[in-house]
Amino acid sequence: MTMVNGYEQSDREEKIDILNLESLEGRAKEIIPTGGFGYIVGGSEDEWTLKKNRDAFHHRQIAPKALSGMENPDLSTNVFGIPLKTPVMMAPTAAQGLAHSQGEKDTAKGVAAVGGLMAQSTYSSTSIADTAAAADGAPQFFQLYMSKDWSFNESLLDEAKEAGVKAIILTVDATVDGYREADIINDFAFPIPMANLTKFSEGDGQGKGIEEIYASAAQNIKPEDVRRIAEYTDLPVIVKGIQTPEDAIRAIDAGAAGIYVSNHGGRQLNGGPASFDVLESISKAVNGQVPIIFDSGVRRGSDVFKALASGADLVAFGRPVIYGLALGGAQGVQAVFDHIDHELEIVMQLAGTKTIEDVKKTHLLDIKY
Amino acid sequence: MTMVNGYEQSDREEKIDILNLESLEGRAKEIIPTGGFGYIVGGSEDEWTLKKNRDAFHHRQIAPKALSGMENPDLSTNVFGIPLKTPVMMAPTAAQGLAHSQGEKDTAKGVAAVGGLMAQSTYSSTSIADTAAAADGAPQFFQLYMSKDWSFNESLLDEAKEAGVKAIILTVDATVDGYREADIINDFAFPIPMANLTKFSEGDGQGKGIEEIYASAAQNIKPEDVRRIAEYTDLPVIVKGIQTPEDAIRAIDAGAAGIYVSNHGGRQLNGGPASFDVLESISKAVNGQVPIIFDSGVRRGSDVFKALASGADLVAFGRPVIYGLALGGAQGVQAVFDHIDHELEIVMQLAGTKTIEDVKKTHLLDIKY
Amino acid sequence: MTMVNGYEQSDREEKIDILNLESLEGRAKEIIPTGGFGYIVGGSEDEWTLKKNRDAFHHRQIAPKALSGMENPDLSTNVFGIPLKTPVMMAPTAAQGLAHSQGEKDTAKGVAAVGGLMAQSTYSSTSIADTAAAADGAPQFFQLYMSKDWSFNESLLDEAKEAGVKAIILTVDATVDGYREADIINDFAFPIPMANLTKFSEGDGQGKGIEEIYASAAQNIKPEDVRRIAEYTDLPVIVKGIQTPEDAIRAIDAGAAGIYVSNHGGRQLNGGPASFDVLESISKAVNGQVPIIFDSGVRRGSDVFKALASGADLVAFGRPVIYGLALGGAQGVQAVFDHIDHELEIVMQLAGTKTIEDVKKTHLLDIKY
Amino acid sequence: MTMVNGYEQSDREEKIDILNLESLEGRAKEIIPTGGFGYIVGGSEDEWTLKKNRDAFHHRQIAPKALSGMENPDLSTNVFGIPLKTPVMMAPTAAQGLAHSQGEKDTAKGVAAVGGLMAQSTYSSTSIADTAAAADGAPQFFQLYMSKDWSFNESLLDEAKEAGVKAIILTVDATVDGYREADIINDFAFPIPMANLTKFSEGDGQGKGIEEIYASAAQNIKPEDVRRIAEYTDLPVIVKGIQTPEDAIRAIDAGAAGIYVSNHGGRQLNGGPASFDVLESISKAVNGQVPIIFDSGVRRGSDVFKALASGADLVAFGRPVIYGLALGGAQGVQAVFDHIDHELEIVMQLAGTKTIEDVKKTHLLDIKY
Repeated sequence: MTMVNGYEQSDREEKIDILNLESLEGRAKEIIPTGGFGYIVGGSEDEWTLKKNRDAFHHRQIAPKALSGMENPDLSTNVFGIPLKTPVMMAPTAAQGLAHSQGEKDTAKGVAAVGGLMAQSTYSSTSIADTAAAADGAPQFFQLYMSKDWSFNESLLDEAKEAGVKAIILTVDATVDGYREADIINDFAFPIPMANLTKFSEGDGQGKGIEEIYASAAQNIKPEDVRRIAEYTDLPVIVKGIQTPEDAIRAIDAGAAGIYVSNHGGRQLNGGPASFDVLESISKAVNGQVPIIFDSGVRRGSDVFKALASGADLVAFGRPVIYGLALGGAQGVQAVFDHIDHELEIVMQLAGTKTIEDVKKTHLLDIKY
Repeated sequence: MTMVNGYEQSDREEKIDILNLESLEGRAKEIIPTGGFGYIVGGSEDEWTLKKNRDAFHHRQIAPKALSGMENPDLSTNVFGIPLKTPVMMAPTAAQGLAHSQGEKDTAKGVAAVGGLMAQSTYSSTSIADTAAAADGAPQFFQLYMSKDWSFNESLLDEAKEAGVKAIILTVDATVDGYREADIINDFAFPIPMANLTKFSEGDGQGKGIEEIYASAAQNIKPEDVRRIAEYTDLPVIVKGIQTPEDAIRAIDAGAAGIYVSNHGGRQLNGGPASFDVLESISKAVNGQVPIIFDSGVRRGSDVFKALASGADLVAFGRPVIYGLALGGAQGVQAVFDHIDHELEIVMQLAGTKTIEDVKKTHLLDIKY
Repeated sequence: MTMVNGYEQSDREEKIDILNLESLEGRAKEIIPTGGFGYIVGGSEDEWTLKKNRDAFHHRQIAPKALSGMENPDLSTNVFGIPLKTPVMMAPTAAQGLAHSQGEKDTAKGVAAVGGLMAQSTYSSTSIADTAAAADGAPQFFQLYMSKDWSFNESLLDEAKEAGVKAIILTVDATVDGYREADIINDFAFPIPMANLTKFSEGDGQGKGIEEIYASAAQNIKPEDVRRIAEYTDLPVIVKGIQTPEDAIRAIDAGAAGIYVSNHGGRQLNGGPASFDVLESISKAVNGQVPIIFDSGVRRGSDVFKALASGADLVAFGRPVIYGLALGGAQGVQAVFDHIDHELEIVMQLAGTKTIEDVKKTHLLDIKY
Repeated sequence: MTMVNGYEQSDREEKIDILNLESLEGRAKEIIPTGGFGYIVGGSEDEWTLKKNRDAFHHRQIAPKALSGMENPDLSTNVFGIPLKTPVMMAPTAAQGLAHSQGEKDTAKGVAAVGGLMAQSTYSSTSIADTAAAADGAPQFFQLYMSKDWSFNESLLDEAKEAGVKAIILTVDATVDGYREADIINDFAFPIPMANLTKFSEGDGQGKGIEEIYASAAQNIKPEDVRRIAEYTDLPVIVKGIQTPEDAIRAIDAGAAGIYVSNHGGRQLNGGPASFDVLESISKAVNGQVPIIFDSGVRRGSDVFKALASGADLVAFGRPVIYGLALGGAQGVQAVFDHIDHELEIVMQLAGTKTIEDVKKTHLLDIKY
């Protein structure tokens, strides 16, 4: 354990055995301090949307495929022109130092080891450059929480571009902090600085709650901001936090090069729909104009399959990776991806889908349970 | 504590911390005597309708709004020509002396402090004049349980008008007491007099059960009574206890200036629908002819949002306020309103709705969960 | 307690307090011996249909009625030309000596005291004549489990007619015993003779299980049997155990003067629908040609209301009455009817229905919960 | 107990009492060692599909039939030209030596004693010839897990034909092992050899996990394989693991003489539909061209009835029989079939269905619960 400002960070670097990703939560809870764990695991209000994010995958079912004449399913894909060995990517997730002393650097290493894609968060514990360096050339995106201070945005975007990120993810569903009760119960303030905020006039986030940090960011985000960031960076801008077809179209009209369907893992607007339940309608509206990334509730290979079959091009998750990070560092992260890839591979074989493209063409059932 | 007729009334006057309104019930249970608490918390029969009042809010979902280009949502509204700082109002709730020695006077103070609207109940522990005085000029409505004795009704209406109330709420869903098992289990009789009943020939309610008190009121309430009260008072009459479009139309035809959609918090007709589930159909039938007030089951900012988006102009609640009253007096009441307003503000920001009018124009999803 | 063949019969004769009918089950369990209680309470297989009988009442909802201009609801009705003070009747229920030493005689007294209707079972513990005498002129029906031996049927029907019963209920849903696990677990055999079976060549039922007793009855019941019984007795024949419109029509075509919609309280065909869920479709098919009796799952006044509003003319129940019988004899039976009538009266008032005819014309909601 | 390689096999040969088949699981768990029991009872991933296999039978309901004029239902049937005394057959189930020292031989005896049909599994603990001999002339099918090594397939098919099996069941839903967590938790490897695998170059299965064994089998199974097996054996080939109408048609086009609707008891593709929920659509597509066998979740006579009424010609189950085998050897197996036949007989009587053909013509209800 590494002790920072009275907060005990894991510094494990070891292989971990994984039965399933759901079971990691309980194991991680034993080693991540209460405040940090509550911040990671929690959702907003009574967590109804958080719970429905999981249940929703049962709303559609995968039919096994008989006599498919295939074997050795292939998980590789290519999205935004980037070749990847797995369609499962690391969602942008803040403050990974809460889980491990190496924070995003270890996550980046683990993701790189599986040939996957990682998105850095604005609120990372490690700097853009350090996290990028840890990936050793593997592809990364940078997620932007837009500041009210445009010069600060430019500074972050400059650094991200310098670090070679392939795209900017603009988060638009967090213009105010969701009402997260775990943070209130724990009176949680970040014990660890956020590396990218050291340039902020207000400081580095340390000692602040997430509500306060979000308040420093822009509440008012407009369509023009999408184009402005795209033009400034000359990188694809992916708009994250889309839950309706209308918003997807507006984002594309504003210049979005990708749509990221997410309800922030149930951490923002409680009382909204499960993210999976809105994916297909958004996908139909987007109609292939730009790639779609999906997250919120993904824990199983079958979840990944269902999301791809409902219109996603990439499927992201955060919490399970953070738990793997806490439990084993970069090797833990790698194990989490290896595990979900293994489950996905089984499902692909049983569903008779040789490639990710085959999965995307699969018709799911929608029996009501 | 203040001891009245062997009943221990809270007399706390202090700030209270609130995690969420659901959690107030357990805290209040510790300080309100069993009989009084059972009267407040209970519903009728096996409380199926009471439970469904809460669940029903999940039947419709709020879609978060991306790139909305807004900030600083504004909760103020204007209903019945009355400017209000919040669309959440205090429902008419009987016998608040069960929760606090200052009863409705403290509630009135708390509601006034947040710029809200309060409805006094016929069965208040404090008099119309005293409760009105405590509000210090803030707007109030008066709720009438019609007596069989018309001269008594006139006397109450005179006093209400004298006190400056802005409207009369005529309750029509309690022509007999719902079968409330908690009151039977506790053999509950009111330990504290009802100030407005001192004029009743039958006495002031003290020592009686609610069933007996309702029996003194009119069972037979007709459309003509609406007009009669309106003409007598020259005030808007709002008919409370509407659960069908047909009844709403009949009430309007009878002269109602407002429709109050409520199932009395699940305390009257068990086996009826959840109040939220019938709101939209009523709203469509009313079609803007008169304002609509909604209650029954509201505990979250997202509930308020959903009710407004389903046709309500004002959203009322009672039990949580009573719990706040018990826990902190006027300051407790204020804290309850501040809390739900805070949750509502977050939801409004995330849903991209700047004003209450924007909320009312929002289209909810209706995914089946 | 009265001890008969090692079986302890209640012989209480006293007033009982009732909170609700559901709670009687637990109270009765304390005084009825295990084997007898298991026989009374149990359903078939895993009791899925038994449970759904209760849940089904939530599938339709009663809308409260505002400004109805009524008071003092009237529960009296007239079915089969018989004036009754309540639409709730005593279902034919076997072997009431399991619950009380006075058996059906006390039940008959209690039902008579409330001005209701009782149906005697073929498998009664007391004789047709004795049970009829106890009713002191109040109306009764006689339920027939048809024997393979027609002369035995004639003997029972003669006795019933002699006793003045107003109609014959022919049970057709028990041509074999449902697979009732409680009886198997308890290795239950009737400790008390069935008075009507003493004429049977095979004996009086004592020491046999219900499976064996049913096996002595006819398995093969045909439409012609309905007419044969009607012609023999010149009494109305009501066919009990109908769950589909097709069967109702066939029974009427066979000469049935009434349709009894029931799934035998979940004791026969498990995996079938809840009885309430099929009532309306049957009522539509019957279309007023003959009266409809309904049972299976009724415990609340609101259940009675919903059944009447879905097409029933009379609503029957058995188990709660048996529990009342065990707890208080004839007075216990009376209390059970008084209680459900009281709940029904409240519901009728709140739903704005002055008479049973008004209830029957009420349109229920069918919101999905 | 017989101890084999440290594994304790039951060697009970005795009559067993059965309350219901669900309760056998708990009793068998007490005598089958943990690893073996986990292998038998487990499903894949979080066992959602496994659970839904049971729940799904409630999606359709059996209406009791009044005045049906029938008695003495007859369970005999004739499928694939084979006369059977019961429509319930033994599903092909691997490694029955895990439950009993006599393994498939006792199962074969028990099935033969009830006049039923048994399917041997490729992964049987006893040899094709021995299992066939134990059946003493009663009909058997042979289930093939196709090997990558065609000469091995020929060798097995030769032996099966030599043993007189009436049909070949080709399993197509296990081209890779489902992700079965119980086996991982128990680190389960087969302690007992699989008799048919002794010819395999890779060995007899002993000491391997099921994942490894499946990996030795063919992953790539094509339509042509169906015809090749049919032509090689000149026996009917039944394709097992069908869950969609499309696959059923493709299998028939490939020469299948029967369709076996199954999701492998929830052991393969989790996240797929309940097997019963897809049966009717498949039956409609097959439209009587070939017989249909159904399994997955069957535990009750009413389940068998519902499957037959939804298009199945034979209904199979495995786990309950294995539990009976462990608890009583051949007599235990016989008791399991006798029990479900008894339940089915009751249901048939109450539903007014004299024959299996009558059952198949029955229209089920589909009320939503």
